[in-house]
Amino acid sequence: MYDFSADIADCAKAVEAALARQLDAAPLSGPGPAPARLIQAMRHGSLEGGKRLRPLLVRQAAAIFNIPAAQALTAGLAVEMIHCYSLVHDDLPAMDNDDLRRGRPTVHKAYDDATAILAGDALLTHAFGLLADPACHPDAAVRIALVAELATGSGAGGMVGGQMRDIEGEAGGLSPDEISTMQAMKTGALIRASVRMGALLGGADARALSVLTLYAELAGRAFQLADDILDVTATAETMGKATGKDAALGKQTLVATLGLEGARTRLNQTVNEALSTLRTFGPKADGLRATVRYFASREN
Amino acid sequence: MYDFSADIADCAKAVEAALARQLDAAPLSGPGPAPARLIQAMRHGSLEGGKRLRPLLVRQAAAIFNIPAAQALTAGLAVEMIHCYSLVHDDLPAMDNDDLRRGRPTVHKAYDDATAILAGDALLTHAFGLLADPACHPDAAVRIALVAELATGSGAGGMVGGQMRDIEGEAGGLSPDEISTMQAMKTGALIRASVRMGALLGGADARALSVLTLYAELAGRAFQLADDILDVTATAETMGKATGKDAALGKQTLVATLGLEGARTRLNQTVNEALSTLRTFGPKADGLRATVRYFASREN
Repeated sequence: MYDFSADIADCAKAVEAALARQLDAAPLSGPGPAPARLIQAMRHGSLEGGKRLRPLLVRQAAAIFNIPAAQALTAGLAVEMIHCYSLVHDDLPAMDNDDLRRGRPTVHKAYDDATAILAGDALLTHAFGLLADPACHPDAAVRIALVAELATGSGAGGMVGGQMRDIEGEAGGLSPDEISTMQAMKTGALIRASVRMGALLGGADARALSVLTLYAELAGRAFQLADDILDVTATAETMGKATGKDAALGKQTLVATLGLEGARTRLNQTVNEALSTLRTFGPKADGLRATVRYFASREN
Repeated sequence: MYDFSADIADCAKAVEAALARQLDAAPLSGPGPAPARLIQAMRHGSLEGGKRLRPLLVRQAAAIFNIPAAQALTAGLAVEMIHCYSLVHDDLPAMDNDDLRRGRPTVHKAYDDATAILAGDALLTHAFGLLADPACHPDAAVRIALVAELATGSGAGGMVGGQMRDIEGEAGGLSPDEISTMQAMKTGALIRASVRMGALLGGADARALSVLTLYAELAGRAFQLADDILDVTATAETMGKATGKDAALGKQTLVATLGLEGARTRLNQTVNEALSTLRTFGPKADGLRATVRYFASREN
């Protein structure tokens, strides 16, 4: 019997420990030693925080193909480092200008802007370095496919492009379709990459990969809808970061265009569609089923 | 007979054309389309500028192993994109705060800080995406080795770590050894990666790789020494960027500690050491020989 609470807790614990091992002097050394201040800022931006949902998706997708969680950890770490770097850069004064993240000072508040920019760059770079490590997967062809997948999901046509569209859209005037595209890139693309990377680790065939891609796109939409709803309904205390910022910034979200109840209805529909894609996989997909349900029900 | 002028011009032309092709809507698309503003900023930060010395080193190192220049182009592009992203981020107000680069406004001046941060992130990410492309090399094992090499050279123990040390050292007090370490990381690590990536494309054995690594480390030192000397002797007009900034910022360079003549003597010694490493390779290494000589003699 699948136990979601145990799965998410075990994954978070494994990710935390592995991140702490990776973000240390020896693994970060290159032609020279990584500076202590840079290592500390990288750790500040990635340790002790977050639910590690993206590594969870990697291992849950891999589990469909009988890949043990431990063998999906390195790929999960790479995705998590990308996620963490994006938060470090997004929090900068030149971007969202957030002082608080997970209830703690953001990296540029704890250090300075230059260190935060560099720590983000170094996390981004190390993510790809991790995928090149044979510990990630013994087959070089699989590892390079993971590199391609992560680059596509996190680059100009994915996460970074979505952040650019979000900034451009702050002036308002985005249609619901344009909002969906922006969110599919900003948040959805990395969720999509996580699921697909799990499938690639498992040697998924084209049909399974395509089904899981559809699941991931729907799960990403559910995640973002829930996030937009939480920005309206939650308090800064439960979220550990500022809320109500979207409206204050005039950001166009689907809650603004559909209304709160409309957004909740759309969220339920999206979760059901995501669940229906997994029909053929049986109990091995219980992890992915639980996670998309969790996306819709989370309170922070 | 090897012709350096023809080699550097041909390489720059090939890189410029290939960058223009890569930094376009189709190659940059992912789960969504790359935003036009992001593409333009990425192009602004990488097209029409630079001598493309790093792709030149990739192809010159590959040439030792009879790899045609065209087959070293994609790996060279990846290194060049890393170099360009680092300039975009280094120019930011939070870092070196430069308004001028190659005689044109820097990306954050032409766009804004947020766009420059994102354009840098997207260039960094696309560099790794390029290495994953089979056009880079038909063998996945070689491509993943290139990913590892580029990540090591450009990450926390390489280029980014060097930039961090440079910022930390602005307060002064670095010893000549500490300056050398900083420079070996900030500038040297990517030069080292370029040469090693060319060698990896050519299937170099451990001995050849080790010899070329030594060449690259010496060439990197020569490059940085020449740069420090130019910062003192050149004018903003010939450089296309502000000069005299190191002294104004109180940056510790080897010119400051060795004096101008001492630095010139050290530069000549370093070039000769670099040349001597190439003895066993014969005329196929004429490109690498010419380039390290060029490093020492360039006027901008």
